[in-house]
Amino acid sequence: AQTTRIAVTPGDGIGPEVVGEAIRCLETLRAKHSLALEWTRFPWPSHAWHQEHGESMPDDALAQLKAYDAILLGALGDPGPADDPDRYLLTDSVSLAPLLDMRKGFDQWVCERPARLLPGARQYLADERAKDIDMLVIRENSEGEYVSQGGRLRKGTEDEIATQMEVFTRKATNRIIRYGFEQARIRAADRVRESRTRTFHALDGTRDGRTCESQVCLITKRNALRYWGDMYTEAFEEISKEFPDVATHHELVDAACMKFVQSPWAFDVVVASNLQGDILTDLAAVLSGGMGVAPSCNLNPTDPDMPSMFEPTHGSAPDIAGQGLADPTAMLFTTARMLEWLGRKDPVMAAAGKELFDAVAADLAENAGARRRTNEIGEAICQRLSA
Amino acid sequence: AQTTRIAVTPGDGIGPEVVGEAIRCLETLRAKHSLALEWTRFPWPSHAWHQEHGESMPDDALAQLKAYDAILLGALGDPGPADDPDRYLLTDSVSLAPLLDMRKGFDQWVCERPARLLPGARQYLADERAKDIDMLVIRENSEGEYVSQGGRLRKGTEDEIATQMEVFTRKATNRIIRYGFEQARIRAADRVRESRTRTFHALDGTRDGRTCESQVCLITKRNALRYWGDMYTEAFEEISKEFPDVATHHELVDAACMKFVQSPWAFDVVVASNLQGDILTDLAAVLSGGMGVAPSCNLNPTDPDMPSMFEPTHGSAPDIAGQGLADPTAMLFTTARMLEWLGRKDPVMAAAGKELFDAVAADLAENAGARRRTNEIGEAICQRLSA
Ligand SMILES: CC(C)[C@H](C(=O)O)[C@@H](O)C(=O)O
Ligand SMILES: CC(C)[C@H](C(=O)O)[C@@H](O)C(=O)O
Repeated sequence: AQTTRIAVTPGDGIGPEVVGEAIRCLETLRAKHSLALEWTRFPWPSHAWHQEHGESMPDDALAQLKAYDAILLGALGDPGPADDPDRYLLTDSVSLAPLLDMRKGFDQWVCERPARLLPGARQYLADERAKDIDMLVIRENSEGEYVSQGGRLRKGTEDEIATQMEVFTRKATNRIIRYGFEQARIRAADRVRESRTRTFHALDGTRDGRTCESQVCLITKRNALRYWGDMYTEAFEEISKEFPDVATHHELVDAACMKFVQSPWAFDVVVASNLQGDILTDLAAVLSGGMGVAPSCNLNPTDPDMPSMFEPTHGSAPDIAGQGLADPTAMLFTTARMLEWLGRKDPVMAAAGKELFDAVAADLAENAGARRRTNEIGEAICQRLSA
Repeated sequence: AQTTRIAVTPGDGIGPEVVGEAIRCLETLRAKHSLALEWTRFPWPSHAWHQEHGESMPDDALAQLKAYDAILLGALGDPGPADDPDRYLLTDSVSLAPLLDMRKGFDQWVCERPARLLPGARQYLADERAKDIDMLVIRENSEGEYVSQGGRLRKGTEDEIATQMEVFTRKATNRIIRYGFEQARIRAADRVRESRTRTFHALDGTRDGRTCESQVCLITKRNALRYWGDMYTEAFEEISKEFPDVATHHELVDAACMKFVQSPWAFDVVVASNLQGDILTDLAAVLSGGMGVAPSCNLNPTDPDMPSMFEPTHGSAPDIAGQGLADPTAMLFTTARMLEWLGRKDPVMAAAGKELFDAVAADLAENAGARRRTNEIGEAICQRLSA
């Protein structure tokens, strides 16, 4: 078999520390299962690279990364000193730009963020049923609100006008919605295999009151953002016909936020636009334990030549960087997802991903709330893997 | 003194029922304090009117409403039968259009949604500190993502492109941000008068580590929606100089959603764009007890000839309409806010608003979770007002 190659980009702040534990687990799994797996570390994208070279990564960065099968990213962003607003601005818009560059450059058109409230994770909701949260938010990751078209007219004057264009194509809409339905089926099959059951009721009538084993909820704001809202709705109705076994549901983004808090356990697969998905994934992440556990997978499922990118949802946490205090749990869940993804056609690799997931979950369940150092957590998980 | 005139638009579903209780309370207060207050009921906007006339309200609706000092709206929207998607679409986009028409037509450029978790209200968060939630989300209500510019090219084909333009002016940006700072000061003064204290720390350094008695948090997504994000940020920095006593803070909308769940009690005044405000106000509403208690005030603070519009945040709940089961609490809180607004220059009217607020809050605290009919709740509150 060919060797699978990973580009490791530790990034800023706590990134290198949590990535260190990911590498340790990868080494353990590689040795244990003789995985044909290699990785290379890159000093960019990073704030340090930016300081030295005036840009977050070299001009040929994407060309270099394209040679790899996946990118494992730690965290980006350095807020700089609190009293220097310019450096603060730099964080948001410049240091984080490589994220968007990779998503676009490699056409990672799916952003997948599973949200399960695992035992041991922090529970923010009062309702006990929060333990049943198990949803997959699928965010359109290639266009929409993120096309960066627009500008500022009469900048800085009282008469200034700022515009920002949202551009949605039917092609990207169809593929993300179809992907959502496919994932719903896969999740239902996984549940059957693991003898878990869930049932869903169709809510907008298209499944005619029948109970289904999976459900896709489409998010729009079509009562205010009419044009793409209608296009999304039509695409959804059309594609849903190919999946008569999947219950369908439509929520406006504002109502969805409310329902995420009121009854998140009622959701299965959720499909949303780039910005609305950005918002809903953060909300889903916090409801299922917070940034400390949330992985984010930027996938190109259609072009095998394009690497997908895996990152924890958390930021670079510069306030605790370099002190060995960062929790690598989210990074390790992210690494597990990467292995499962890379193992789509390689059962051993996929099993290693599942094994890592189970080890991290078991560690989380046993050590809920314990204060442990970054490397203690990584080591405990590696021991579990070696046991 | 001149008579204050209110246009009452009960709307659809449970709207007429909850509005009935609002009128009952208004009658009680008018009699008790000899308020110079009159109201007129309108059969539109409504779904019924639409069925009969082919439009939700008459052509001269805004001209008619302009003669009033305020509009008290019940609820809009009728989803129709679940098996008729066209009627379902109508709900969102057509039945609700009058809301947007009024906001635009009367330049109600502020949407104010206070979120306090009052005793007796449903608490979704596990953390006890949720009892301290007391924020005011101020939503820009006149432009931005809601300008309805855009369209669909090659509609219905595989090559379709849907665009939606976001348009932000410096003028509207400045006025909403300044309004936010003014409200922060007013809220701080209220707290002093009521001997409640809160302190806030400036988080982005512009207040240099000092503790302040009020705080404004600006929301943007400037790391992805750069153009207006930067304009908002610059306007915020500039206007904050006029309010050196107010702590300032900036959150990205996705992080804000997370922090609303993690520590909503840390927020004071929050200023957001039209769409981001729509999302955050729904989230704030659910965190402070849900739709059953949340008022929404669409205000024009600058033009005295333009009526402001007051509505509960909840929908028309057609599933329970006409059965006397609707909870009028949100409607009555909304009515209280309306009286306070109308009483800006009329202390007796303002006091009546405060009295209604207190009566509704006391009723909520005493009857937490009790199942009561719509008119029982209204009657209990009127008795409290008459006592
Ligand atoms: C850093 C930022 C541009 C990014 C986004 O908005 O997509 C982040 O919030 C995320 O969710 O990955
Ligand atoms: C009905 C809809 C257009 C409206 C909005 O998005 O403003 C509603 O959600 C609200 O918040 O008042």
